[in-house]
Amino acid sequence: MKIRYYNGRVLSMQQPLAVQEAELWTQDDKISYIGPTKADMPVFDREIELKGDLLMPGFKNAHAHSAMTFLRSYADDLPLHDWLYEAVFPHEARLDGDAVYWMSRLAFLEYLSSGITACFDMYMHLDSFAAAQADSGFRCVICGGANDFGGTAESTVREFETYNAKNSLLSYRMGFHAEYTTSAALMKELAQAAAAYKQPMFCHNAETKDEVAGCIERYHTTPTVYMDSIGMFEYGGGGFHCVHLSEEDRRIFQQRQLFVIANPASNMKLASGIAPLWEYDAAGIPLGLGTDGAASNNALNMFREMYLASGLSKLLSNDPKAMPAETVLRAATTGSALAMGLTGCDVLAVGKQADLIEIDLQQPNMQPEHDIIKNLVYSAGPQNVKRSVVAGKILYEEGIYHVGETPEYIYRKAAEAKQRLFA
Amino acid sequence: MKIRYYNGRVLSMQQPLAVQEAELWTQDDKISYIGPTKADMPVFDREIELKGDLLMPGFKNAHAHSAMTFLRSYADDLPLHDWLYEAVFPHEARLDGDAVYWMSRLAFLEYLSSGITACFDMYMHLDSFAAAQADSGFRCVICGGANDFGGTAESTVREFETYNAKNSLLSYRMGFHAEYTTSAALMKELAQAAAAYKQPMFCHNAETKDEVAGCIERYHTTPTVYMDSIGMFEYGGGGFHCVHLSEEDRRIFQQRQLFVIANPASNMKLASGIAPLWEYDAAGIPLGLGTDGAASNNALNMFREMYLASGLSKLLSNDPKAMPAETVLRAATTGSALAMGLTGCDVLAVGKQADLIEIDLQQPNMQPEHDIIKNLVYSAGPQNVKRSVVAGKILYEEGIYHVGETPEYIYRKAAEAKQRLFA
Repeated sequence: MKIRYYNGRVLSMQQPLAVQEAELWTQDDKISYIGPTKADMPVFDREIELKGDLLMPGFKNAHAHSAMTFLRSYADDLPLHDWLYEAVFPHEARLDGDAVYWMSRLAFLEYLSSGITACFDMYMHLDSFAAAQADSGFRCVICGGANDFGGTAESTVREFETYNAKNSLLSYRMGFHAEYTTSAALMKELAQAAAAYKQPMFCHNAETKDEVAGCIERYHTTPTVYMDSIGMFEYGGGGFHCVHLSEEDRRIFQQRQLFVIANPASNMKLASGIAPLWEYDAAGIPLGLGTDGAASNNALNMFREMYLASGLSKLLSNDPKAMPAETVLRAATTGSALAMGLTGCDVLAVGKQADLIEIDLQQPNMQPEHDIIKNLVYSAGPQNVKRSVVAGKILYEEGIYHVGETPEYIYRKAAEAKQRLFA
Repeated sequence: MKIRYYNGRVLSMQQPLAVQEAELWTQDDKISYIGPTKADMPVFDREIELKGDLLMPGFKNAHAHSAMTFLRSYADDLPLHDWLYEAVFPHEARLDGDAVYWMSRLAFLEYLSSGITACFDMYMHLDSFAAAQADSGFRCVICGGANDFGGTAESTVREFETYNAKNSLLSYRMGFHAEYTTSAALMKELAQAAAAYKQPMFCHNAETKDEVAGCIERYHTTPTVYMDSIGMFEYGGGGFHCVHLSEEDRRIFQQRQLFVIANPASNMKLASGIAPLWEYDAAGIPLGLGTDGAASNNALNMFREMYLASGLSKLLSNDPKAMPAETVLRAATTGSALAMGLTGCDVLAVGKQADLIEIDLQQPNMQPEHDIIKNLVYSAGPQNVKRSVVAGKILYEEGIYHVGETPEYIYRKAAEAKQRLFA
């Protein structure tokens, strides 16, 4: 399958960042050409005129609990304790594979319609999640989620072997839920598993002040320092949220090149705080961005995350220069891709995976054109996403999804699952 | 012209807030019926099946500088001083009527596509703005913007008389730029004009800490207390931004029922601070919401303002209960309408103006349905706006604008004006 995208512009996300007048060709799952129009062209299966629109890498949602769409707008404006113990936990306990399947498929629709072409997902009922991934043709990286309530080092290794072997669009990285939900014994076994497989390790880290305080009580040090002391990050990895990292934590993140995966919308809405991303960036810590789950966010929208990653940094630092648009855009695309191990999807270049999106610039919020990169971060939204392409396949275009079942059918199945879970 | 909207739901914004299964009819510019389907119906000019979608009042953008779209994404990630003195002021000095006309028309497109059906606009070249309003059929309230660099009490009165008499969709409220840009003599004359015409008065107020500190240096008190002391708010009014109101300021706002018009996106991006809206609300101060201009925001999107008005309040108060969705939604619709004097556009009810929007709930970010009001504030965006109706006329539907010229033409004219201003 050969597709030609022409008469538009390309933001490859290679350094130095620049929007270029160029066309882009794909062959099967890969990018085969980026450059000026050629006199000598192959025969294409499809030619898409971009009419000045922008092609760029799809957003990589580097922290997700996709199936938590089942709790979207169910429990807002509540104290954290009530949110977690009365809304989230009791209903999660009732989740089954069927619900995870349909709620994940619903999330994938939302991802595609807002320009997200891959997610890094930590949740449960992984077989059902993997089935949803396969049936949608969406790119997913599963993150291990072991903790004291489920999962072991052995199950993590088994998952690692199972889900890395399923299909070309699915992979698995080792992970566990968090220090505060995982015993020292289990964490040590997980660290050994990571070392045995030479794998990076990911977990929730320093999301709230209470979490850090609890760890200091338990281990007399921060989560990062403790986990590092037991060899958790010998082969790298990263942390989700990372709102409250100490100076020593930051040194570890920098030295080991651990990724900070920021989730500004969730942290704001749950009043967890603001991650000082501009400080992390200045310290040389690699950054990614994620939406977290719909239970707290409530939209799965990387435009929102980008806007907040910059805006909240400006607010907290009292400096409008903090976290400029370019830094944020790199985190949401290249940074997140590298955190997820998607080294074939980080930028648009010949030989890379064709995971890309078309941004409609002919809409009022993108006019007039002074600076397309600033427009992307500070003004654009899902309404500007015209096409989303995963491994060369157009899964979303102009409101139409090519993911098997229709959205109406997926909404109905999700509504049925919701009815069952909340009966 | 009689239009029937049926097979959907209505959120009238009347108290108590509730989504009802109902149809809605309009006749010319007014709502003629809301209720269950009737056996006996008039003949309609058009019948629109909502397919479960939601009708609600359009958002009222209660603080705008519409034509500042000419600076969208021109000056981001800059220190405030450079932003204002190197980017905004020198280019504003070059603005002409033609530029204001096309840049305002561009803003109206963005308003309509994101569900905004009226704006409260303070800027310059008012005749050109009024022409843009009339040619678009958009509802506007001009806010006087006198200050030491232009405008007098006399010109304010003249504008008041001129722009309240132009057409049924245009009105004018007295206002001036701000204490820090307006001499005491001019402010006193403006206060007398407001008293003579028994009019409320609006201005920027306490946007930054520096502004308040400057006022204290000049008048030994805050802007609100000073302005109140010279009789500025005898007939009510309000303030734009109001990030830093003292206890005494708040008492004046409450006692005189002055509106706080919040602009959370602009305040975040310029690192001005967070307005403690939940405290204002608890103190009984009426609230409205606005986008401010595209130079700082950069999108003109009330969904973003609503999300931030709630989220930033939660963050600053360290309380996820602060500024619940219902309070924010009221501010963005009813509150803003009342601040703007649009008493005919505050809620959906028989006899009220048909200023309403259709929200597409059949999109992944609005599924499954637990709570439509939370979904509106925490998950919805411009991609969910299917129709925008002003005074009964459908000005936007499913990507198509009915405002005279095509969007492509307006983009081209705006681009030409931009070229000229930045030549």
